[in-house]
Amino acid sequence: MKTFIDEDFLLKTKMAKTLYHDYVENLPILDYHCHIDPMEIADDRRFDDIAQAWLGGDHYKWRLMRANGVEERLVTGDAPGWEKFRAFAQTMPKALGNPVYHWAHLELCRYFGYEEVLNGDTAEEAWQVCNRQLKTLPVREIIRRSRVEAIVTTDDPADDLKAHSRLREDASCPAKVLPGWRPDKAVNITKAGFREYIGRLSEAAGIAITDFDSLKEALRLRMDAFDAAGCGVSDHGLDYVPYMPGHEKEAQSALAAILKTGELPAPEAAEAYQFELLRFLAKEYARRGWVLQLHYGALRNTNSRMFDRLGPDTGYDSIGKSGDPERIAGFLNSLEIEDALPKTILYSLNPNDNAMLDSIIGCFQKDCPGKLQHGAAWWFNDTKTGMEEQLKSLANLSLLGNFVGMLTDSRSFLSYTRHEYFRRILCNVLGTWAENGEVPADEKLLGDMARAISYGNAKEYFKW
Amino acid sequence: MKTFIDEDFLLKTKMAKTLYHDYVENLPILDYHCHIDPMEIADDRRFDDIAQAWLGGDHYKWRLMRANGVEERLVTGDAPGWEKFRAFAQTMPKALGNPVYHWAHLELCRYFGYEEVLNGDTAEEAWQVCNRQLKTLPVREIIRRSRVEAIVTTDDPADDLKAHSRLREDASCPAKVLPGWRPDKAVNITKAGFREYIGRLSEAAGIAITDFDSLKEALRLRMDAFDAAGCGVSDHGLDYVPYMPGHEKEAQSALAAILKTGELPAPEAAEAYQFELLRFLAKEYARRGWVLQLHYGALRNTNSRMFDRLGPDTGYDSIGKSGDPERIAGFLNSLEIEDALPKTILYSLNPNDNAMLDSIIGCFQKDCPGKLQHGAAWWFNDTKTGMEEQLKSLANLSLLGNFVGMLTDSRSFLSYTRHEYFRRILCNVLGTWAENGEVPADEKLLGDMARAISYGNAKEYFKW
Amino acid sequence: MKTFIDEDFLLKTKMAKTLYHDYVENLPILDYHCHIDPMEIADDRRFDDIAQAWLGGDHYKWRLMRANGVEERLVTGDAPGWEKFRAFAQTMPKALGNPVYHWAHLELCRYFGYEEVLNGDTAEEAWQVCNRQLKTLPVREIIRRSRVEAIVTTDDPADDLKAHSRLREDASCPAKVLPGWRPDKAVNITKAGFREYIGRLSEAAGIAITDFDSLKEALRLRMDAFDAAGCGVSDHGLDYVPYMPGHEKEAQSALAAILKTGELPAPEAAEAYQFELLRFLAKEYARRGWVLQLHYGALRNTNSRMFDRLGPDTGYDSIGKSGDPERIAGFLNSLEIEDALPKTILYSLNPNDNAMLDSIIGCFQKDCPGKLQHGAAWWFNDTKTGMEEQLKSLANLSLLGNFVGMLTDSRSFLSYTRHEYFRRILCNVLGTWAENGEVPADEKLLGDMARAISYGNAKEYFKW
Repeated sequence: MKTFIDEDFLLKTKMAKTLYHDYVENLPILDYHCHIDPMEIADDRRFDDIAQAWLGGDHYKWRLMRANGVEERLVTGDAPGWEKFRAFAQTMPKALGNPVYHWAHLELCRYFGYEEVLNGDTAEEAWQVCNRQLKTLPVREIIRRSRVEAIVTTDDPADDLKAHSRLREDASCPAKVLPGWRPDKAVNITKAGFREYIGRLSEAAGIAITDFDSLKEALRLRMDAFDAAGCGVSDHGLDYVPYMPGHEKEAQSALAAILKTGELPAPEAAEAYQFELLRFLAKEYARRGWVLQLHYGALRNTNSRMFDRLGPDTGYDSIGKSGDPERIAGFLNSLEIEDALPKTILYSLNPNDNAMLDSIIGCFQKDCPGKLQHGAAWWFNDTKTGMEEQLKSLANLSLLGNFVGMLTDSRSFLSYTRHEYFRRILCNVLGTWAENGEVPADEKLLGDMARAISYGNAKEYFKW
Repeated sequence: MKTFIDEDFLLKTKMAKTLYHDYVENLPILDYHCHIDPMEIADDRRFDDIAQAWLGGDHYKWRLMRANGVEERLVTGDAPGWEKFRAFAQTMPKALGNPVYHWAHLELCRYFGYEEVLNGDTAEEAWQVCNRQLKTLPVREIIRRSRVEAIVTTDDPADDLKAHSRLREDASCPAKVLPGWRPDKAVNITKAGFREYIGRLSEAAGIAITDFDSLKEALRLRMDAFDAAGCGVSDHGLDYVPYMPGHEKEAQSALAAILKTGELPAPEAAEAYQFELLRFLAKEYARRGWVLQLHYGALRNTNSRMFDRLGPDTGYDSIGKSGDPERIAGFLNSLEIEDALPKTILYSLNPNDNAMLDSIIGCFQKDCPGKLQHGAAWWFNDTKTGMEEQLKSLANLSLLGNFVGMLTDSRSFLSYTRHEYFRRILCNVLGTWAENGEVPADEKLLGDMARAISYGNAKEYFKW
Repeated sequence: MKTFIDEDFLLKTKMAKTLYHDYVENLPILDYHCHIDPMEIADDRRFDDIAQAWLGGDHYKWRLMRANGVEERLVTGDAPGWEKFRAFAQTMPKALGNPVYHWAHLELCRYFGYEEVLNGDTAEEAWQVCNRQLKTLPVREIIRRSRVEAIVTTDDPADDLKAHSRLREDASCPAKVLPGWRPDKAVNITKAGFREYIGRLSEAAGIAITDFDSLKEALRLRMDAFDAAGCGVSDHGLDYVPYMPGHEKEAQSALAAILKTGELPAPEAAEAYQFELLRFLAKEYARRGWVLQLHYGALRNTNSRMFDRLGPDTGYDSIGKSGDPERIAGFLNSLEIEDALPKTILYSLNPNDNAMLDSIIGCFQKDCPGKLQHGAAWWFNDTKTGMEEQLKSLANLSLLGNFVGMLTDSRSFLSYTRHEYFRRILCNVLGTWAENGEVPADEKLLGDMARAISYGNAKEYFKW
């Protein structure tokens, strides 16, 4: 029986262990997509206690606590940190098989040197150990210890990128921190606050936005600013990939109408607007050599009571419908037809889309290894089984060897262990294939692939 | 090589064996959902022969026989029992990998002490052994030997619950037998016989049903009667979960029209009716502390010729479309918004819905551990792989430790071995995790979880 | 650690090895569905080099090369064979886990005796070994060595079947080569070239086609000709299974209109036409004892630029939407209701459809073992994991023992190793079940099943 979270955690075969320890364990981390606040790196934030660090914004953990019947006061409410942490620790024994169980124990080991199993009985000891360690663990120290080489944050086009400019001038920051371009608010024409947002964007760009052309110009100006700040990655969070060719007029009218009178567009006009705007943006990315990331398939804010109380991103989203291959391929084709398809990474929150996405990327490959990518298992799929399925589906239908690998996608600074988690799972998949004779038992061949997926491919793909 | 159906059947690791034999093997069964006829328990029915007990109403077995080209006379026709049984036995060697192969052999072992492999050659011997044993195996003896503590049957609101009242007064029955509330006939406004059914319901409730209000009142009265008979569980079989908010008027008109003139509602009005009626019922369940079970995703009666000949539930249903997350979350939200969401168990017949359902239940959890549940792998998914997938998906996205576990969902008294089957699979999943170091190798931690899922959680959830 | 591609490739247990080597390894191949050109068998074609044999028409390999950034000149362009082959060999190390990695190495071993791992370094050696061997490997020699007993090609109703008639008179051909009836061009009423095609069909049948009746008559005449040439298998490639009952008139008008004026039918009329034509054809198949194969779920020609440049079947198709169970069951029922459902094999390109299809076939079984079949994992799913999932889903929901097994579905004469690949995977599934005690450890029982699935069932099903 293997020990829980020992040095060979998740590595079942000799080859898996060799690949992990000799090839990828100590590689730096390129975290090309996360949701941490760059200002906290600029300020080198310190956490008061482990409740703040762990439970301050982590809706994964909140969901588990609620599923255990923990009252909201102890989840997102004003209860003292120790009570929240204890309630979380008491929930843990029910969470066997959940990735949070692995992540939490990995973080306890790696950052706090705490190797016991977390539960109601050990909660107090863990609380004290972690809090003691946190005194010497400001966020830059976490980044340094995690060997993070680059971090791409998630930033709005209207953002002034002040944190990034401070960080650029600060030689003491252990990692490159780059902005990530996320123009969702400009795309989501039917969401509350769209007009106000266009106002802010207008201000940030320094030009009036009155129609589609001036919107494009404003976005172009902001892309220039992001580009100058080192940005090379965009990200889009979509309910679904829009596809409504031949409706440029409707798209323009929809924007003009809402800007003028606040009139919400009909669903078809809204999709036309999103399709046209996404196409414009994607062409700009292609021109600039940026990467397009498309995340789709979340059904957000399903619980109205809690949304009214806590707002978005508080643990009330779910997996949405399976993606529509005609729309997805149609969108990509609408760019490829003009030779204007940028490097693209597709992510679906619905795990049933794996094979479909892996087959679609194969229809638009050219120019460089892995120009189109099926992104790492995302959010609800960011589990051992979810990652294995994504890796195997990608291997079945594409070239696994060109995969750009893992990202944290996290709001927490302690999540870099997810890269360790991913690398162990990757090495275990490769090692199991070798053990079973499904690939040559050639350590170099497998090690090179593990290394490329863990680090080298992303370095090349994002041109760092 | 492991022996087929020995004491360690399906248990691959030492920990799995320990968990099964030391923690859950001898726990009582809480069968909170089945389709057996309570009158047969009241009468303590005896079976003439194994053909009657096994092939009398089991469409799982019928489908396998038909897939082997067996003529209908030997499936549901008037052929002698022995001939039917032999045809089934001859089909068995083709059924390797099918759950019926496991279930049949488990039942042969556990209830009849017959340990040979069933096929055309052993058919006669098995026939004689089983028939001899059946002489001393009336249904209450089966229930007693299976350690069944409680049985929830499936009952129509118009049912007089006579069997249940006989059983309540009969101290010799080895298990608590409780009615389960299944008001499908009142919900299915477009199905043949709806008006006649409303007539029967009206009679059972003792009030005239002429509109939505009087329908609700009649259902309330019948819920009172069910409640008095110990009912605390409802069940709904839906093609899909309806969601049509803001159409109360259409719902009321649709009902009024069909009651008055027999006019069938248009699809949208029918969905509005179903949505409103389900909401009414769910709120009543919440008020009474009942559990709502929602089963959706079956495509029923696909074969018209055989439906005309044999009627429903004869083996001509299939897996239907994947569920619509917007409708499902919307329906739950429409109740939660009024703080009127009861304990709810969701089941889809489409196995692609696992992750989606596991993510949706997480959006509405509060108040108690596991208020919302993703039900055990259902019907076509009630297989070793189907159960493993449901368990792992639930663990990935929720708290496996709060799962209320298995039900037979069966029309046969010999199906209690499905609880054994489930417990073995559950212990094997937990034991494999321990073997691989994915969970702590802590027998007590794992054993407590296995025990809770096999028995304790259901006891708590259903308040028995 | 197992050796890559040794004699026990993919066979993990002792039982798996026994089943493979003692029961199925040397069985003949019945390749009931492929895309090779019968004229090349009639001519006993020889290949100039391995680039021609391997890369001449294989879009699986082309897609991998493109995913590695290989320029199109080296994929389908006019580059020399050696350069193309080298570019493919250089792509291989990225393709670990891809079925092409297995297929390519199996073919190198089995047909060329080349046992090294293919990559940029070994490319030249492999090139020379293969080319030397190819001198003595005309296609009939490949067929002979592969123990192929029968081959069903894919032929258009307007085809004159000249190659087949030459082969019928040629006693030296080592395998029976039969035409397969694929009337897609008559079904695809909205595709470019439909009218021209009807003209060719008219000519082939020797009657004028002016309406639905004369179309049927022409198809009947061609079916007579195919029947006389030994055809007993049809194949249909559909975007989705059409279902539009009660629209015969629209179907007829749609055909009349396009034949007269070239007017394209509206989507609903097109589906009505396809539904009616498929029904007519299926009834004819039933009458003649032919098998109906339905392939659906591909999204074709997604990349317009490359379609314009290279045409169809060049590697730009993807997995399409999940199938609609109501349409599929409705279509089958529309035939069964008239007792006119032929033997039918259903294939979906979307792997999420496995369980749904396995449940649907169970609703229409009668008359003979396995009348309705869920076809072997197809195209993008023709991988180790895809085949295992199809086998396990089929076993879970139907009778695995009646499965008609593997087909190459290939454009290449070197693909017969896919039957070896399938048989190894099948034996490994059965052997693993035995090892785990999930089936009796009865070599004869398992060996008989492996043999039936590898050969006997197809022989019986197709009446060869």
